Amino acid sequence: MKKNYQFELEFKVRDYECDLQGVVNNSVYQNYLEHTRHEFLDTAGLNFAQMYEQGILAVVARADIQYKYPLKSGDRFVCRLNTEREGIKYLFYQDIYRLPDEKLCIKACITTVITIGGKLKVLPEFDKALSI
Amino acid sequence: MKKNYQFELEFKVRDYECDLQGVVNNSVYQNYLEHTRHEFLDTAGLNFAQMYEQGILAVVARADIQYKYPLKSGDRFVCRLNTEREGIKYLFYQDIYRLPDEKLCIKACITTVITIGGKLKVLPEFDKALSI
Amino acid sequence: MKKNYQFELEFKVRDYECDLQGVVNNSVYQNYLEHTRHEFLDTAGLNFAQMYEQGILAVVARADIQYKYPLKSGDRFVCRLNTEREGIKYLFYQDIYRLPDEKLCIKACITTVITIGGKLKVLPEFDKALSI
Amino acid sequence: MKKNYQFELEFKVRDYECDLQGVVNNSVYQNYLEHTRHEFLDTAGLNFAQMYEQGILAVVARADIQYKYPLKSGDRFVCRLNTEREGIKYLFYQDIYRLPDEKLCIKACITTVITIGGKLKVLPEFDKALSI
Repeated sequence: MKKNYQFELEFKVRDYECDLQGVVNNSVYQNYLEHTRHEFLDTAGLNFAQMYEQGILAVVARADIQYKYPLKSGDRFVCRLNTEREGIKYLFYQDIYRLPDEKLCIKACITTVITIGGKLKVLPEFDKALSI
Repeated sequence: MKKNYQFELEFKVRDYECDLQGVVNNSVYQNYLEHTRHEFLDTAGLNFAQMYEQGILAVVARADIQYKYPLKSGDRFVCRLNTEREGIKYLFYQDIYRLPDEKLCIKACITTVITIGGKLKVLPEFDKALSI
Repeated sequence: MKKNYQFELEFKVRDYECDLQGVVNNSVYQNYLEHTRHEFLDTAGLNFAQMYEQGILAVVARADIQYKYPLKSGDRFVCRLNTEREGIKYLFYQDIYRLPDEKLCIKACITTVITIGGKLKVLPEFDKALSI
Repeated sequence: MKKNYQFELEFKVRDYECDLQGVVNNSVYQNYLEHTRHEFLDTAGLNFAQMYEQGILAVVARADIQYKYPLKSGDRFVCRLNTEREGIKYLFYQDIYRLPDEKLCIKACITTVITIGGKLKVLPEFDKALSI
């Protein structure tokens, strides 16, 4: 049975994202994961850049990324996510699947916190946006 | 008491590594960690690019990165590491400290495996190089 | 009157592409331009990664990029191109326009050459693909 | 006879900077050039990030980069520069040489302008710093 996700975003690997091993460099997946989170938040009415300008910082506290299968030049893929709140932590469970065969490539858990004026906060708008 | 490390490498933050929050982007720390591992291996006589050309792939299986404190434009810092073998897994414990105040910024554990011709291997040269 | 182009590709700025000035970093435009060229070539039946594996290298000899207007977080834009051959040089005239207002952001001329076995070549398939 | 330069900075290629052709990706040279300019300005008492916070923007108006020879994994190199003012434009002539053989790899001219509150300015401190 296919897992349910709250949000997904499609991408295509760009050649400059590949390294000398001919596959997407490990650090680039964090770019994919970040862009997916920001697009998700934006869809939910929370724009990352605007929040920053208002002094609301969404900060990554921990990134735990399992590399299951490498993506290569030209591969299409989808980045899917689910969210959860654990006290003051917002967890993003993010998985990357290659298309069209749905091969699991990345399984990640990104822990974020929100700070306003340098203080950790739970943000009601964030809870609402994340349907938590 | 200061922890002992097997290897360390000094860096300075470059402005293009900072994002719109004015701090080093989360993905860039993986670049720092990777470069430090590759320099460590190179010092031990194992060149990453040459291994790749010989069909020996050192592959990251998991990256678990705790973001403790952000680095900013112009910050100097040092990336230190220790290694350990756990069955077929080579673990790199990698910490980043800001200089000169030794503030802990990143605490990471990078799990790597070695594949030769697509098969997982324990490499005696690797064990020796890592003094495991 | 609107200029005619041989190919165009749409993008959206990703937050990690912006630097501490809050705009897309200058080097990132080269990524956009490269990806557009590679997608154009791919559409024409010339896959960059496959050419590389066959020993056919498309190499940038010169990049002349005029920065007319900066792109920001969340901006949508289109990268358009025209091609021309000048002796052994393939020129890509590439312009980036912000969407939906068609504001000109980048005006570039990228000069590329093809080498096979280290020697400069004119490639009939390339001429055909580029409709030159 | 060796050319004279106002400033130089040494680097070493990092593996993540190389792309699937096994050489430094074209866009990465702009990172090297930018970092060298910023270090040069910093040495002259003009910190890029601080200027930005004060509303003084140093902006690239044009980058003209000739790719003479590719850098590879592990290569050491030096980025050298000279400056010149032409009306309101500050020109940075920047060349990259591989070490230790001094092979010319990049020959670039980067045109920058300074804006304060959105208006183009000639900045006496800038002239002084650049010894123009």
